[in-house]
Amino acid sequence: MKDAVTTVMEQCDRLADISEEPGLIHRPYGSKAMHEVNDIVAGWMRTAGMTTRRDQIGNLIGRYEGRGEKTFILGSHLDTVRDAGRYDGILGVMVAIACVQRLHDRGERLPYSIEVVGFADEEGLRFGTSYLGSSAYAGSFDRERLLLEDRNGVTLREAVRSFGGNPDAVERDGRSDEGLLGYCEVHIEQGPVLEKEDLPVGVVTTINGQSRIQVAFVGKAEHAGTVPMEGRRDALCAAAEFVLEAEAAAKAQPDAVGTVGEIQALPGAANVVPGEAKLSLDLRHPNDVEREGLRDRLEERAGEIAASRGCERLWEVRQETNAVSADEELSAVLAQAVEEEGLKAHRLPSGAGHDAAQMAAILPVAMLFVRCEEGISHNPAESVTREDVEVAVGVMQRFLGLLGGVHAIEEEAGQ
Amino acid sequence: MKDAVTTVMEQCDRLADISEEPGLIHRPYGSKAMHEVNDIVAGWMRTAGMTTRRDQIGNLIGRYEGRGEKTFILGSHLDTVRDAGRYDGILGVMVAIACVQRLHDRGERLPYSIEVVGFADEEGLRFGTSYLGSSAYAGSFDRERLLLEDRNGVTLREAVRSFGGNPDAVERDGRSDEGLLGYCEVHIEQGPVLEKEDLPVGVVTTINGQSRIQVAFVGKAEHAGTVPMEGRRDALCAAAEFVLEAEAAAKAQPDAVGTVGEIQALPGAANVVPGEAKLSLDLRHPNDVEREGLRDRLEERAGEIAASRGCERLWEVRQETNAVSADEELSAVLAQAVEEEGLKAHRLPSGAGHDAAQMAAILPVAMLFVRCEEGISHNPAESVTREDVEVAVGVMQRFLGLLGGVHAIEEEAGQ
Repeated sequence: MKDAVTTVMEQCDRLADISEEPGLIHRPYGSKAMHEVNDIVAGWMRTAGMTTRRDQIGNLIGRYEGRGEKTFILGSHLDTVRDAGRYDGILGVMVAIACVQRLHDRGERLPYSIEVVGFADEEGLRFGTSYLGSSAYAGSFDRERLLLEDRNGVTLREAVRSFGGNPDAVERDGRSDEGLLGYCEVHIEQGPVLEKEDLPVGVVTTINGQSRIQVAFVGKAEHAGTVPMEGRRDALCAAAEFVLEAEAAAKAQPDAVGTVGEIQALPGAANVVPGEAKLSLDLRHPNDVEREGLRDRLEERAGEIAASRGCERLWEVRQETNAVSADEELSAVLAQAVEEEGLKAHRLPSGAGHDAAQMAAILPVAMLFVRCEEGISHNPAESVTREDVEVAVGVMQRFLGLLGGVHAIEEEAGQ
Repeated sequence: MKDAVTTVMEQCDRLADISEEPGLIHRPYGSKAMHEVNDIVAGWMRTAGMTTRRDQIGNLIGRYEGRGEKTFILGSHLDTVRDAGRYDGILGVMVAIACVQRLHDRGERLPYSIEVVGFADEEGLRFGTSYLGSSAYAGSFDRERLLLEDRNGVTLREAVRSFGGNPDAVERDGRSDEGLLGYCEVHIEQGPVLEKEDLPVGVVTTINGQSRIQVAFVGKAEHAGTVPMEGRRDALCAAAEFVLEAEAAAKAQPDAVGTVGEIQALPGAANVVPGEAKLSLDLRHPNDVEREGLRDRLEERAGEIAASRGCERLWEVRQETNAVSADEELSAVLAQAVEEEGLKAHRLPSGAGHDAAQMAAILPVAMLFVRCEEGISHNPAESVTREDVEVAVGVMQRFLGLLGGVHAIEEEAGQ
């Protein structure tokens, strides 16, 4: 019989072949490829002793009955970005199934049931909005989203229906914490921290909050040949100062990241002094107050830079997402499982968003990060080692065992 | 009878109505609008006592016979950029015609003939190459240019023919200095120097040399949320440092200008650390050795910046144009004319290119700049005052008189 890790790696490879486009991985919400993946994964769930169902939005849910009445949720997402890697999301679902398979193979029942959820949409590229799957599951789905259209003019309402669900029943799927113990998600780190720490896995402390800001400097467009340097109001020079200021400010603040990913100079001709420069600013931090402080300091600095160069500053906050903390007790159990596997339980924040952030609204959540090569993700070069996946499976099995112990004790104490 | 300045201002207004597009000024090479403008201006030339002809490329040439055998050339261009102002190029031709009109009205003949040239293309937007008119006139037309295509796939060869010329005879139009005394061009400054100096006109010393360089920094594209600040290889941060470095270096070098007018971050997403940043660099200086020194220092600094950030630097010199000096003796006569009009003869370099730069290859050249509001050009807001045009006409009349004196003396000495 094949070992659990080989199975997980082969399953990730198998799903990588199921795509809307030949030659690259692309599985948007509601696509034919997502249909097919849900069918295949449902089969693997049943092989692992689970009953399967799907909810209206299209989340795939496998249930492995336990001895007690409560249920613990494992999961991650099965959709992908375009030209994706094969582990982002998928790995978490496959590791969860592998853990259940192991219980099933041994005929072992835990003092709680396990549900493994393969969320139907986390990346959100088709409708320009993230977490369609986990927000529906967690009861925070906003029905106005049903009006959203994809680039072909298909509404989410139509997409839900053609994916086999009833768009008007999506909200009714929303769960409370009733009967649920918690949620734990395994996910590739998508960053370089574990590689640098030389550790296969890490315990997530927080999913960072995020500010997205559109910044513009407006100066004066002039002839690059005829206008002397003194007296120019070069908007791109102001923007360049700001880019370096944002970098320095984020560097100076522990755990903060700040990125200017987009920039544009207008009119954008080699022989014209830029009269306007636009840029994006992305700030993230595990602590909302600190993130807001960084944001406000940079807003002020942008104003000072603009003023010193005779430019105007425009500052538009496009998005603010608060940080979500992992549950301390649940994370302590996960850290214990890591240590019992003989490893240091390194704690790290998550700079990227995850389904766990949605689930945290109703449940205690924990997350286990798995090291990925050079932190590369959203890219076909995404890579994890077999050895690290083996550690992740081992940790999760231990975690479920420890949780069973805790729960059994709680149950006894309660009786 | 209308005064000369009113006529010049009205002529500039009249030509502003002749365009390829309603509502804005747009007269590319060989266009119907250029046909029409050439016809109208030829009429004005004949009214001023000139005979007119056109050469194969379509330059309009008016000739006013003098007493001697030699000829002095006045002129500028009649084509425009898209959404142009009404004075760039046109003003120089109209002031020249006004001077000849004055001679004609008085029945005055100078000891040399005058030719007024309205060049058919200086801006070069249609075929992506400047000076089609003046390079043909000055004998430096490269016949390979005939293969150039405009955005509709029309070759320059076809455009020359439909504009009424013989493309294979363009080169034969090229003149040497034989029989020619020199060239003087009146042009709006297109910069803010004269306005700052509070002077209506200035004498050009040099048409600045120019280096155009494409610079790129290549770092590593990474997730903006998951990759800590330390260890990033952010190509846009490197580019931002370089933008400020170029500004500082140009500021530190008298008479230099340095401009980054275009910038691009790749992949160009708000949530991705830029893996590549591309930018244009435009350097100009009246002295070629100094410009090359500035260019080389910035190349070195770009390398240092890249190295300090773990990035690669790409450096591609796209264009190098050497500076062209105005003729000292001719410029001294022009300066004398300015002073005899009771004004300070302010000397200034030209940061923009002009037909005079082409003419300098065969002839002594001089240029008179006319103040324009806020230095604005290539824009419908381009503006010159009636008073300043009056000064320009006065200076040019005096200049032609002084030149006649000089020439008469030379002729006598030669006999």
